[in-house]
Amino acid sequence: MGGAAAMLVLFTDYGWQDPYVGQVKGVLAREAPGVPIIDLLHAAPDFNAHAGAQLLDALSLSFAPGTVFFCVVDPGVGGPREACVVQADGRWFVGPDNGLLSIAAARAEQAQVWRIDWTPESLSDTFHGRDLFAPIAAAIAAGRFPADRLTARDRLNIRFDAGDLARIIYIDHYGNAWTGIRGGLADPSVTVQVKGHSLTWRRVFGDARKGEPFWYVNSAGLIEIAANRAHAASALGLAVGDIVQLSMPPVSAAH
Amino acid sequence: MGGAAAMLVLFTDYGWQDPYVGQVKGVLAREAPGVPIIDLLHAAPDFNAHAGAQLLDALSLSFAPGTVFFCVVDPGVGGPREACVVQADGRWFVGPDNGLLSIAAARAEQAQVWRIDWTPESLSDTFHGRDLFAPIAAAIAAGRFPADRLTARDRLNIRFDAGDLARIIYIDHYGNAWTGIRGGLADPSVTVQVKGHSLTWRRVFGDARKGEPFWYVNSAGLIEIAANRAHAASALGLAVGDIVQLSMPPVSAAH
Amino acid sequence: MGGAAAMLVLFTDYGWQDPYVGQVKGVLAREAPGVPIIDLLHAAPDFNAHAGAQLLDALSLSFAPGTVFFCVVDPGVGGPREACVVQADGRWFVGPDNGLLSIAAARAEQAQVWRIDWTPESLSDTFHGRDLFAPIAAAIAAGRFPADRLTARDRLNIRFDAGDLARIIYIDHYGNAWTGIRGGLADPSVTVQVKGHSLTWRRVFGDARKGEPFWYVNSAGLIEIAANRAHAASALGLAVGDIVQLSMPPVSAAH
Repeated sequence: MGGAAAMLVLFTDYGWQDPYVGQVKGVLAREAPGVPIIDLLHAAPDFNAHAGAQLLDALSLSFAPGTVFFCVVDPGVGGPREACVVQADGRWFVGPDNGLLSIAAARAEQAQVWRIDWTPESLSDTFHGRDLFAPIAAAIAAGRFPADRLTARDRLNIRFDAGDLARIIYIDHYGNAWTGIRGGLADPSVTVQVKGHSLTWRRVFGDARKGEPFWYVNSAGLIEIAANRAHAASALGLAVGDIVQLSMPPVSAAH
Repeated sequence: MGGAAAMLVLFTDYGWQDPYVGQVKGVLAREAPGVPIIDLLHAAPDFNAHAGAQLLDALSLSFAPGTVFFCVVDPGVGGPREACVVQADGRWFVGPDNGLLSIAAARAEQAQVWRIDWTPESLSDTFHGRDLFAPIAAAIAAGRFPADRLTARDRLNIRFDAGDLARIIYIDHYGNAWTGIRGGLADPSVTVQVKGHSLTWRRVFGDARKGEPFWYVNSAGLIEIAANRAHAASALGLAVGDIVQLSMPPVSAAH
Repeated sequence: MGGAAAMLVLFTDYGWQDPYVGQVKGVLAREAPGVPIIDLLHAAPDFNAHAGAQLLDALSLSFAPGTVFFCVVDPGVGGPREACVVQADGRWFVGPDNGLLSIAAARAEQAQVWRIDWTPESLSDTFHGRDLFAPIAAAIAAGRFPADRLTARDRLNIRFDAGDLARIIYIDHYGNAWTGIRGGLADPSVTVQVKGHSLTWRRVFGDARKGEPFWYVNSAGLIEIAANRAHAASALGLAVGDIVQLSMPPVSAAH
């Protein structure tokens, strides 16, 4: 837990333009000196904790146990939603109890949950990231588990289905559309259906013709819809939330 | 001054896209090894040192004394404006003497001012951030006050009014419009007037109807114009520089 | 090589929006703890290793020997192109062997080249930055040269002309257009021709009239086309790849 190998990883919908990320980092650097702070994503889909929860789980797996994730997609800030800490297979997650952390918790082999029941001296109504989540995340990363500010709970209040989500959950700046379907379920003969299009598999971009849309398993282990040297999401009219279907090929009579 | 607890905080109009921030960080990391470098804002309003000065002061207050702010909104780079260092209640500011640092200086209980009168061996005409301000800021953050490169001054050459600025000074990527009016002056019964709209107070976003514009005191302590799950600046037609007015409610006859 | 003074500097076309940079940094921070990681550019021109190679060389010169550059402009990822390490006058470059590193190599007084012939246990087909280049770059920066994963080579497979490139190679967010022509070749009497426009020299922005386009030698040592308080690229219709010509003034009869 924490210690020399810890990292603080930020996963938010704050965007890059504004001073919010920097204000959070000011708190983290002060409270956990020497711990690396890494920006993983500040473009988590706005107001969409479900897509965010799928993305967060997929992306977190390439970080080592001991990593502390600072997680904010929090349209209900200042309202009645609770704040929580999750430990899932050794990785730590700090954020709102609105489902965002629930998929990482549900898919872990072992997980623990705490409610944050601490009120900092200065708590802005709209910036719990800086005032509440950052001090807790920093304390964990610095190896000082803040037991006096947490209460163990059996489970989160808001829990999303831990299964795959057959929707578009993220569109990157190249126009590649990530689905919430883990690639382990699909073999190369599968066809992906989205918005009336049927897409076949290619291993890498260079195996597709220029502009051809296709699907493949991306570096986060998810089925992704892409096009070679083209913006797949624009070409196919895709948006976060769109439904995706997998079609298995017909079984051959010979089997 | 400086020492183990120092941080280097960047406040510029360089944007994120370009190599300018990275080149500055290369100098800072070399000259102040081990000091955390934090990006606070790279979207300070272009060519607008006055709005920048208000923003810088408001945002700086959540950082501890000892923090060193690297500050660049500098349309006059390479011209006759001087370069300066300000120490204001223990926080350090390094940048152009064009007013950008003047509000932080004026509002501090105690402040000191120096002119940078050093010319580095290699000084580009257009990138004083990398060549001039970064080495000075790094030296201060590393605890090596560069006395031989500075001359104490009574005050800055360019000084903006230290009072509140009743204008829009920043619009964030959510569309929330920050004013230069500190929230301590306003109570919840005040109405904010902007561009022909009258806005009432809400404590948090969730207290407003979907799309309803309102005002509240933001996490930097400033009056901000926002809308619940909507882009207030687009909806109300707001831009940086727009004038804002506060209307007090009529005094009740009963008092 | 590596050691306490090393830095890891990122030069990619990943953009800022997506989780790719953060995933790379997770690997770098784990494998080279304590080494500063600096984002130099994530907006290298897409699919354009030639422009990228010119930019990379120009920008790298302001970093000290020992710096390790993580370099990705890699449309052929997963295909037959090789991966390589270049050491050029003490600076290290890790990336694809598609020409991106070739100008830095060719212009150095002394350079060495290695092929990366290691296949990591988990190598995604599309994210060699995270899986292949990052571990190699981190090992070099940490002072552990990975000799067992590299094979010395006489030269790179793909090599661009090491001379200046008389084209636009980058457009910054202010609208300033960088050329691939080093400024040492031009004196102030030269005229720059681009898209039918003839531009004269100004030392700094403030020496031009408002909106006037001009050329000057920028902070990376390259000829740049700019305009005072205006977006030169939009005003002149410039794009990356556009051809630029320098016209010497007529020789005076008196000489």
